[in-house]
Amino acid sequence: MSCDFTYHVPTRILFGEKIFQQLGAELKKHGNNVLLIYGSERLKSLALYQTILAQMDQNDLTLFELGGVEPNPRHSTVNKAAALCKEKKIDVLLAVGGGSVIDCAKLTSAAAFYEGNCWDLVTGKAPMERFLPIVTIPTISGTGTDMDAFGIVSNTETLDKLPFFHPQLYPVASFLDPTQTFSVSTFQTACGAIDAFSHYLEVYFMRPNLEAHLRCIEGFMKSIVHALPIALKKPDDYEARASIMWASSWALSGFTFGPTKGTPFMCHWIEDEVSAKYDITHGLGLAIILPHYLTYCLNAKSAPLYAELGANVLGLSGEDSPLEMGKKSIAALRNLFFTTCGLPQRLRDCGVSGTEKFPEMARIACRNGSMHGFVELNQEDVVNILTASF
Amino acid sequence: MSCDFTYHVPTRILFGEKIFQQLGAELKKHGNNVLLIYGSERLKSLALYQTILAQMDQNDLTLFELGGVEPNPRHSTVNKAAALCKEKKIDVLLAVGGGSVIDCAKLTSAAAFYEGNCWDLVTGKAPMERFLPIVTIPTISGTGTDMDAFGIVSNTETLDKLPFFHPQLYPVASFLDPTQTFSVSTFQTACGAIDAFSHYLEVYFMRPNLEAHLRCIEGFMKSIVHALPIALKKPDDYEARASIMWASSWALSGFTFGPTKGTPFMCHWIEDEVSAKYDITHGLGLAIILPHYLTYCLNAKSAPLYAELGANVLGLSGEDSPLEMGKKSIAALRNLFFTTCGLPQRLRDCGVSGTEKFPEMARIACRNGSMHGFVELNQEDVVNILTASF
Repeated sequence: MSCDFTYHVPTRILFGEKIFQQLGAELKKHGNNVLLIYGSERLKSLALYQTILAQMDQNDLTLFELGGVEPNPRHSTVNKAAALCKEKKIDVLLAVGGGSVIDCAKLTSAAAFYEGNCWDLVTGKAPMERFLPIVTIPTISGTGTDMDAFGIVSNTETLDKLPFFHPQLYPVASFLDPTQTFSVSTFQTACGAIDAFSHYLEVYFMRPNLEAHLRCIEGFMKSIVHALPIALKKPDDYEARASIMWASSWALSGFTFGPTKGTPFMCHWIEDEVSAKYDITHGLGLAIILPHYLTYCLNAKSAPLYAELGANVLGLSGEDSPLEMGKKSIAALRNLFFTTCGLPQRLRDCGVSGTEKFPEMARIACRNGSMHGFVELNQEDVVNILTASF
Repeated sequence: MSCDFTYHVPTRILFGEKIFQQLGAELKKHGNNVLLIYGSERLKSLALYQTILAQMDQNDLTLFELGGVEPNPRHSTVNKAAALCKEKKIDVLLAVGGGSVIDCAKLTSAAAFYEGNCWDLVTGKAPMERFLPIVTIPTISGTGTDMDAFGIVSNTETLDKLPFFHPQLYPVASFLDPTQTFSVSTFQTACGAIDAFSHYLEVYFMRPNLEAHLRCIEGFMKSIVHALPIALKKPDDYEARASIMWASSWALSGFTFGPTKGTPFMCHWIEDEVSAKYDITHGLGLAIILPHYLTYCLNAKSAPLYAELGANVLGLSGEDSPLEMGKKSIAALRNLFFTTCGLPQRLRDCGVSGTEKFPEMARIACRNGSMHGFVELNQEDVVNILTASF
């Protein structure tokens, strides 16, 4: 059986501690007017900000700024950023922050050339046609948005949260410095790593028929499982932070899901609805839902997948049946998420006040139909998974 | 300790059986005049050739041809190809064949804009300045040259074989169809897979301090060790061929050796000299030399590397000491190369008539000094390894 796919990630990655001396030159390739997009004002207190200013100076670049991007970026913020791009004749976007900031920059990249509400570009009412180049400096590991062409944005008026994609949305360059993540809290470190891990896991369970790819994915998952507890205990462990950063960057590029058919990201689609309705951190939502999702989907047919995960990634051994191995794999993940990382275990502990919106959330997660992943899930199944997670 | 590196592989990869309908459009992006570069005339008897002709027709492209590229491509052939590019105003190169054909296209890409002997571009006497875009269709898995910016070329006048590199030498697109490799002989299949495997192995032993990367490399090596015997027994096993093809393509991109410092490819550099002097297939030379090289470099300090390879890649288990595990790992590789693949075990069985050239070969492999890989090797060490392999 063929496994046709296209892989194309043109982003230039600069990785390490000594990369920022190349930042100005990279930006300068695209013009003089740089719009720095960021989240919290804490950025201004970091050495990184001074480094950026120095690079602007040394390369005769003009810096404009748009801060305050929300943890789930809002379309209204993108509209503000796009207006600024037009007003200031911005040549290149510099996104410094987490996945939300980078996603905001991505939609801004296209919105800067659109006369109207950027939400139109997300819903497909208007096409994305021209793009500002994007350079990213992730300060938190998690989504891999620094080397993919996807984004996700929330509309606080309609309470929708929708993904968008365009092949021109790959950042032209991403500067990955693991030391920038030393100060990330244990909570955010855990949420980011779990987000990346679950991307791999969901693709892995789809069994793309390309063994080289499966084994490679196992390697990335193993490295996250190994590095995460180290990074939590010792936040400035360079190698652990570097491993999580590298594994995260590859977690959502075409590299990971290239050979996959169907709906690989079922658990992500369920969680996206939780984050959209309740504004909880994506990785936390995943940590809570994933074990229930895996438990719900575990059966005699799917059990060998879980057993292979246990043996090749989670270090389980023994002569248990696949079903038993499956349960142990889920238990190992629960142990990682809740004991090692100390995350809350239930949606009700994270601002989800009741179950009444679950049917509506299930309908959107299922795109009005069913999800065709490594098992089939209909809307009722999704309600059951959400209820178990509640 | 930081692990600074840049990763940038802009090549678009189309993977699978149904990709060739996109070939004409891909070539057309760059112009109308296509130079098909290939090796043996056997290509003309393949369905692939008819597919290429049909794509030319459908997209109004004009095809020119240069065949007869040697297994170790010669600079004289590149000079011929470059002359043809100038004469026919070629817009894009289409390399169809093994690594040698693609390497020939790469040097041609730059030589097409140089008035002189292409060897000047290899030795650095003249800079590479302009480039024809390259599209590749590998018909054999092995070197990963379809997604890197390296090549290697032989000068039959000076008996030199030298690598070349330029960031503009990444193919713009590579069409990877595993079914094209179904007809590759067991000998060439083995040589190609061992070449890819040894790229990973050499980087792995350098311990780039990025665990995510090490685990990923392990995954690729595991998949080769698993798929190779299957592909040898059942040449049209799609998944085995696909795995070997994918693992091979990544084996020499910046992805693999990105985070590595020093001289990772010691065994390759030694073998390059054997191929240069005796024109033996690169993968065969590697298969013969690698076990002796590994035996020579095994000591109390390096043994843990071998033990980890045995446990994580070769499926060895048990309570042996690292040194014992090291010996077993080498034995497992010998078993794969010589029993499973049936390759000859000694250089003397492959046209190497004597040992008298070994000191000169060692000098060139060591670039007149020593090699600084996972152990240090001086020229005498290299002579010893070659003699053991003889």
